[in-house]
Amino acid sequence: VSAISAIAEWASGVSKDHEGGAYDRARNGCIDTVACLVAGAHDPASVAARDAIVGWGTGAATVVGDSERRPAPWAALANGTAVDALDFDDYDVPAASHPSAVILPALLALGEERGSSGRSLLDAYIVGVEVQLRLGEALNMSHFHKGFHSTATIGTLAASVACARLLGFDAATTGHALSIATSLAAGSKSQLGTTTIHLHTGLAAHNGVLAAALAGVGATGSVDALDGGWGTLRLLADGDAPGFDLPLSKLGDPLAIVEFGLCVKPYPCCSYTTSAIDGVLSLRAEHGLTSNEVAEVIARIPSRNIELLKFPKPENELEARFSMEFCLAVALHRGAVLVADFTPTAIAEEEVRALLPRIRMEALPETAEHENVTILLHDGRTLERTVEHPRGSAALPFSEDELL
Amino acid sequence: VSAISAIAEWASGVSKDHEGGAYDRARNGCIDTVACLVAGAHDPASVAARDAIVGWGTGAATVVGDSERRPAPWAALANGTAVDALDFDDYDVPAASHPSAVILPALLALGEERGSSGRSLLDAYIVGVEVQLRLGEALNMSHFHKGFHSTATIGTLAASVACARLLGFDAATTGHALSIATSLAAGSKSQLGTTTIHLHTGLAAHNGVLAAALAGVGATGSVDALDGGWGTLRLLADGDAPGFDLPLSKLGDPLAIVEFGLCVKPYPCCSYTTSAIDGVLSLRAEHGLTSNEVAEVIARIPSRNIELLKFPKPENELEARFSMEFCLAVALHRGAVLVADFTPTAIAEEEVRALLPRIRMEALPETAEHENVTILLHDGRTLERTVEHPRGSAALPFSEDELL
Repeated sequence: VSAISAIAEWASGVSKDHEGGAYDRARNGCIDTVACLVAGAHDPASVAARDAIVGWGTGAATVVGDSERRPAPWAALANGTAVDALDFDDYDVPAASHPSAVILPALLALGEERGSSGRSLLDAYIVGVEVQLRLGEALNMSHFHKGFHSTATIGTLAASVACARLLGFDAATTGHALSIATSLAAGSKSQLGTTTIHLHTGLAAHNGVLAAALAGVGATGSVDALDGGWGTLRLLADGDAPGFDLPLSKLGDPLAIVEFGLCVKPYPCCSYTTSAIDGVLSLRAEHGLTSNEVAEVIARIPSRNIELLKFPKPENELEARFSMEFCLAVALHRGAVLVADFTPTAIAEEEVRALLPRIRMEALPETAEHENVTILLHDGRTLERTVEHPRGSAALPFSEDELL
Repeated sequence: VSAISAIAEWASGVSKDHEGGAYDRARNGCIDTVACLVAGAHDPASVAARDAIVGWGTGAATVVGDSERRPAPWAALANGTAVDALDFDDYDVPAASHPSAVILPALLALGEERGSSGRSLLDAYIVGVEVQLRLGEALNMSHFHKGFHSTATIGTLAASVACARLLGFDAATTGHALSIATSLAAGSKSQLGTTTIHLHTGLAAHNGVLAAALAGVGATGSVDALDGGWGTLRLLADGDAPGFDLPLSKLGDPLAIVEFGLCVKPYPCCSYTTSAIDGVLSLRAEHGLTSNEVAEVIARIPSRNIELLKFPKPENELEARFSMEFCLAVALHRGAVLVADFTPTAIAEEEVRALLPRIRMEALPETAEHENVTILLHDGRTLERTVEHPRGSAALPFSEDELL
């Protein structure tokens, strides 16, 4: 059986009585995602998404920050972009992606247009997260390391299945939706530091809605489009990708949202900075440090992650969120990393910028299990901290109170 | 200078006074494309595209077959799908794609929405074709042979630049449009024989309009998204792709629409059947053959092309257009290959189906320059025909009278 058929069979047939606290996790994921949506709605990326669609009709779906309702694909685009605009939204490990920022806006838009129940929406969200994380297991880390931004690519695929589930499609129609989505699954990590990296979540949500709508009116796609000779696995990953057999054998058993969980972000910047920020903040608090005591900061993280944090002297918000130097400078200087630290004024602040040359990354040795930070002080002391798990990750989750 | 910057500089700066009969060629391309649009508007793929968007607002752009005007991205989707629905639309050699089916519907939709002149539209079409064919030279045949459907991928990129030209963008904004388009450029040859292969032209047109609209309101993309380490060249082609240097050195000098021309199709089916149909029809006419005299037909075509013609016993219109056996059976039986030969009734016709087992493809030896067909007759005669150039190709173009 093809990968598309296996996913479609499961996604169309699984009972809504999901086990293992899946609905609680889904509810927490939605709370965090809606908070990110509201907080991000006035970011320039979100404004651009809304400005682009303003002449393209009104509809049934709410767009945060827009006085008009819009057709579902445009609401998905605008809201999906807003959720990720601050880079504050949740992420997952197997797909190395932002699942909720894609799946939830697609479902909210389509659900509002079609009058779905909240329970159906949470069910479809659980199904979408399952597909996103299992496809991540099949394609990664090959796919992500090759250069694809899984949020955009795998996100498009997962969103199409989530929408198919919400619309109650049978297995064949669900398979067509997923297959059509393979023809929209694009986007690379080239876009880091530009608006487009945040548009990726919105575009993936839009693509998922569109693929499902096309399948719903009878458009067909090939069942070979994931694992055939010209399928996604061979075209968008290298030979070292694990493939579909093992991940699809686990579909729903257990649910990936239970097996892996979703990682909630404590800071509005690239998740690859989280452990280092945790380390700097804890050393700063423990030793009562002020930033002018600090001679040098070294963050040791996997070499692959260093490639993504490519803005040692960020010029704008988009670059600052992918700058380890900037994020740690803020942490050192202010003792926190908050939404307000990424405004143009905050990014230009002299005391923060003066710290940038004192901060650098080093590749973590492959044998090391956990990231660590070293702070060298002017008085000669050396402070070190190993961070076993970043705050908000599956191993160190926020409580519902912390989320709220 | 990056590939995106080079293309954007040229596309935003080139004079509208294109040389070398480019406007005549563009006009002929548009005549043929509009004819395909009208003829294809009632195909099931086109109906599906229109049905999917019916609830998503009205707008300014005409959709053939729809009593309402629609927002530009949806008009581009519906009309773009209709142009290719019969597989009767023009193609090009370097990109191995359908350029006009993507570029013209995008421009018609956006032009109607923004009130562009016909002359501006032809100019933007010439610019779009240039980008599509030069990107084809850079990425192919690696990209196409790897499994990507260049119509969908390269088409999305070219359409974004055509739209940027129509909107009068400067170089920076044009570059952002093209970069954003890389995040929408997807689609594989897996989809042959399904609705989605025809949706690819519509989706690419839609993507081009969307990418340009986003850039037009300030969204940014990376200039490295084509030729950077995580760019399109490295992600969507293998190491044997020629790359951008030579093709971009020729941008506009001469124009690709003059250097290569566009190939117009004489038959509504995959272009890889054209030479063989030409050969069978000419032998049939020359010898006054009837199909029941024929014992066997062998079409010798490049082995790569055989992979695409994968439906020896087509079950429906979508498969029949990619079936060498069916197309040659029709040619033998009727002495022509027409739009009416791909209806469900025509595909099921017993006399045509009886011929299918007598027709087969063989791989053309790599040393052979031209395709050829052999017809073995029951009376023992063997008829052969080598086809130097398919009808409608750049070397054997239709006159304007033939087009009309």
